[in-house]
Amino acid sequence: MTKIVQPSVDPFYFHYPSGATLVTSHAGGRSNLMAVAWHVAISRVPPYYAVSISSKRFTHELIVESGEFTVNFVPWEERELVAKVAACSGRDVDKFAAFQIETEAGSQVKAPVLKAAFAAYECRVAGHYPYGDHDLFVAEVVAVQWERSAFTDDGRLDLESVSPVSYMGEDRYVTAAQEVYLDRGALVGEALEIARRR
Amino acid sequence: MTKIVQPSVDPFYFHYPSGATLVTSHAGGRSNLMAVAWHVAISRVPPYYAVSISSKRFTHELIVESGEFTVNFVPWEERELVAKVAACSGRDVDKFAAFQIETEAGSQVKAPVLKAAFAAYECRVAGHYPYGDHDLFVAEVVAVQWERSAFTDDGRLDLESVSPVSYMGEDRYVTAAQEVYLDRGALVGEALEIARRR
Repeated sequence: MTKIVQPSVDPFYFHYPSGATLVTSHAGGRSNLMAVAWHVAISRVPPYYAVSISSKRFTHELIVESGEFTVNFVPWEERELVAKVAACSGRDVDKFAAFQIETEAGSQVKAPVLKAAFAAYECRVAGHYPYGDHDLFVAEVVAVQWERSAFTDDGRLDLESVSPVSYMGEDRYVTAAQEVYLDRGALVGEALEIARRR
Repeated sequence: MTKIVQPSVDPFYFHYPSGATLVTSHAGGRSNLMAVAWHVAISRVPPYYAVSISSKRFTHELIVESGEFTVNFVPWEERELVAKVAACSGRDVDKFAAFQIETEAGSQVKAPVLKAAFAAYECRVAGHYPYGDHDLFVAEVVAVQWERSAFTDDGRLDLESVSPVSYMGEDRYVTAAQEVYLDRGALVGEALEIARRR
């Protein structure tokens, strides 16, 4: 494809879907949750996970105060909840009460986990890095909560049981489809054999 | 959902789909590309983006040496390329030659951009943070290359024109489907009105 090249990057964050997670936090008797599409795994052993959150957010204040948060992965049925959570601030609204969100206690952190989540990571902040208009919080994953029926026996998300929500920017959401298994070993073996014969 | 709670987190990275990107790098006359599912936007103004890469990878060596990389978003048609790139190391194979990958020059960095990508970010490293078994490279996005036909006039990825590739772990890939627009303002207004009446 012949691409447009631009030194200006706006609006660079609409280029691909990213999981629409709900991040909870709790400090000083106050709890909140917000929608976060900018999140990432960093390490598997030991497990580290990061979220990028604007310093203007109420959640930012609670995470700085407590050093803790949870990342909740919710099914497609909860997409309107994600949109509602994204549309208001915990400074103005108790979102848990207003949207009748059921929670369970964190096992290692004070931030709650959503009952509707098919998986949630309990996180303790290990590093905090301001970059531009957001702050990156890198955290150790200190516990995982997961719904057994949402996963296969070998630990994969079972798309026949649960459809994840991803965000596309501009209030648009998608789910996952057309799952394929690709045998990377066979594919690369074949490709390298063809390359050798060229 | 009643969840299993585990203090051990393995295998925590299979819980949701994550965009399957191809990251290119170039240093000392050598180029490489690798498949990266652990990537994230951090800031919009100015734009920062991060990738998490094991220090064992050839790409890690090239990024440390050059301070540069590109992140390429490829369409569903290229899913087998992603699997092949993921199946071998640039220390053993010139992947560009072996898989006949066409590239274009970066406009601001020496790492190449993939012709097959519908969008690519040119990145210059601003921070480098080892966490567990991977290193997080935070970079300024110094240019964006994007295929006009893949995006709508208002800058969204056009799913009628292009299907992005996401990774599910364990050599499984998905694309995006069932796009919906959710009017967050209307949804939250209605929900808060119902809450007021309760």
